[in-house]
Amino acid sequence: MNRPADVGPLLGRVETRVRYPETDRMGVAYHGHYLVWFELGRTEWMREIGFPYGELEDEGVYFPVTRAEVRYRRSARYDERLVVETRLVSVGASRVRFEYQIDGQDGRMVATGATEHGAVGPEGRPRRLPANLRERLQHGGS
Amino acid sequence: MNRPADVGPLLGRVETRVRYPETDRMGVAYHGHYLVWFELGRTEWMREIGFPYGELEDEGVYFPVTRAEVRYRRSARYDERLVVETRLVSVGASRVRFEYQIDGQDGRMVATGATEHGAVGPEGRPRRLPANLRERLQHGGS
Amino acid sequence: MNRPADVGPLLGRVETRVRYPETDRMGVAYHGHYLVWFELGRTEWMREIGFPYGELEDEGVYFPVTRAEVRYRRSARYDERLVVETRLVSVGASRVRFEYQIDGQDGRMVATGATEHGAVGPEGRPRRLPANLRERLQHGGS
Amino acid sequence: MNRPADVGPLLGRVETRVRYPETDRMGVAYHGHYLVWFELGRTEWMREIGFPYGELEDEGVYFPVTRAEVRYRRSARYDERLVVETRLVSVGASRVRFEYQIDGQDGRMVATGATEHGAVGPEGRPRRLPANLRERLQHGGS
Repeated sequence: MNRPADVGPLLGRVETRVRYPETDRMGVAYHGHYLVWFELGRTEWMREIGFPYGELEDEGVYFPVTRAEVRYRRSARYDERLVVETRLVSVGASRVRFEYQIDGQDGRMVATGATEHGAVGPEGRPRRLPANLRERLQHGGS
Repeated sequence: MNRPADVGPLLGRVETRVRYPETDRMGVAYHGHYLVWFELGRTEWMREIGFPYGELEDEGVYFPVTRAEVRYRRSARYDERLVVETRLVSVGASRVRFEYQIDGQDGRMVATGATEHGAVGPEGRPRRLPANLRERLQHGGS
Repeated sequence: MNRPADVGPLLGRVETRVRYPETDRMGVAYHGHYLVWFELGRTEWMREIGFPYGELEDEGVYFPVTRAEVRYRRSARYDERLVVETRLVSVGASRVRFEYQIDGQDGRMVATGATEHGAVGPEGRPRRLPANLRERLQHGGS
Repeated sequence: MNRPADVGPLLGRVETRVRYPETDRMGVAYHGHYLVWFELGRTEWMREIGFPYGELEDEGVYFPVTRAEVRYRRSARYDERLVVETRLVSVGASRVRFEYQIDGQDGRMVATGATEHGAVGPEGRPRRLPANLRERLQHGGS
């Protein structure tokens, strides 16, 4: 699902549908679930570049979110097919920042946003990114 | 919040409100969240009898659910105040069964249900209930 | 994704992965999310037989769950690929019953369960299934 | 639970505990749930000033979130008692902005954040805030 040729080497693309429990009584997707879709976006992207997030955790590298932002452009409807595009925009010694765009079934933008993460070890203390991951992130899907 | 005198020694009672993200586009609480309310019921009850569930886990005793049942009687509305009554109905060497009743703000029954749990250790293998917990469970809030 | 030839006309099959927010601190999928996966199973199946659930609701036909049961066989891990098989086991004038089996990535059974639903109109009153849906359900994916 | 004398007229305070399903396999609260706690904060505050959010919706006034930000300061643990403080920081003709601070059981800051909302009618089109609500918001809990 990654199409680096279209949009540059650092982009992943994943599809999801709005699930029934993700709607609320306003009849559309609850705003908190957008952070879940962002997560789908970045974990799929990490899988594609060869670092499934679960394996990183198994090796003792965690990426808790330190900051999140969402701008909601239009509502997402039940069962609507969404495309989440994820872009890695900065990589430091121990910090990364992703940006996201979610488009709806009609191609219109549903939301944009960003998350920042700081690598920590199993005991919760900050640590540097593993060297091979850092190098891979800096070169993306290319 | 436990009022054993009213209803027998093995009963806990906890209140919760239906949160906005717990509603779905039908305009009422999503059916999956009832299992969360059952959990609130049993964890409050365990806290009241002196065994906060978090502490049990810290000591390496986990109670994964092995079976769950829910009968939905009427819909629960957004912001409705619910009362969850929890009753421990059986305690074995390593297994327990809880039953639940959820009543709405108007006193009418919203749902009933049950969960069964088998104690396991941190490695996921079955284990016996700790003796002091088992004794306490068999004597409930009394 | 429906493969009626393998397993009979009344079966749908959908894949999903265990999402990070679906795990809990026990390190595996929270038991409440199995009802969400059952829902994925039946809504995909309804889409495949030509009755997307969203369209039914748009026409004023709702299927609230009146009963749910889950038997948990083994834990589902983060990012594990699950297969949800859905089988329609009975269709009445206004009620239906689905049964489910969830298998893990290794082919082992993760859970089984069932849900029962009663058709209601937009005002929440019981109603009969639309005739074309009822006929379709009775003949499944065949 | 509102203590305007302590902290100024525009502040609400609500307590919640981290629920088991709100934890993830990192062992702490999943970052997406902070938006749910922010919502608890502002809906409790609106209830206290006399405008329960559910009643506003029943009258055709909705407040979808147009923007959300969260800064995560430290992890929130399972069963930890959290205090959510909500402050209304701006009120326009049809837009409002809330800011939040979540403190943990030890009094340390767990997170801060903000949400912005634009009033819409039942058909989803922008509308002005009802005059009595706008006046009340501008005078807060005082």
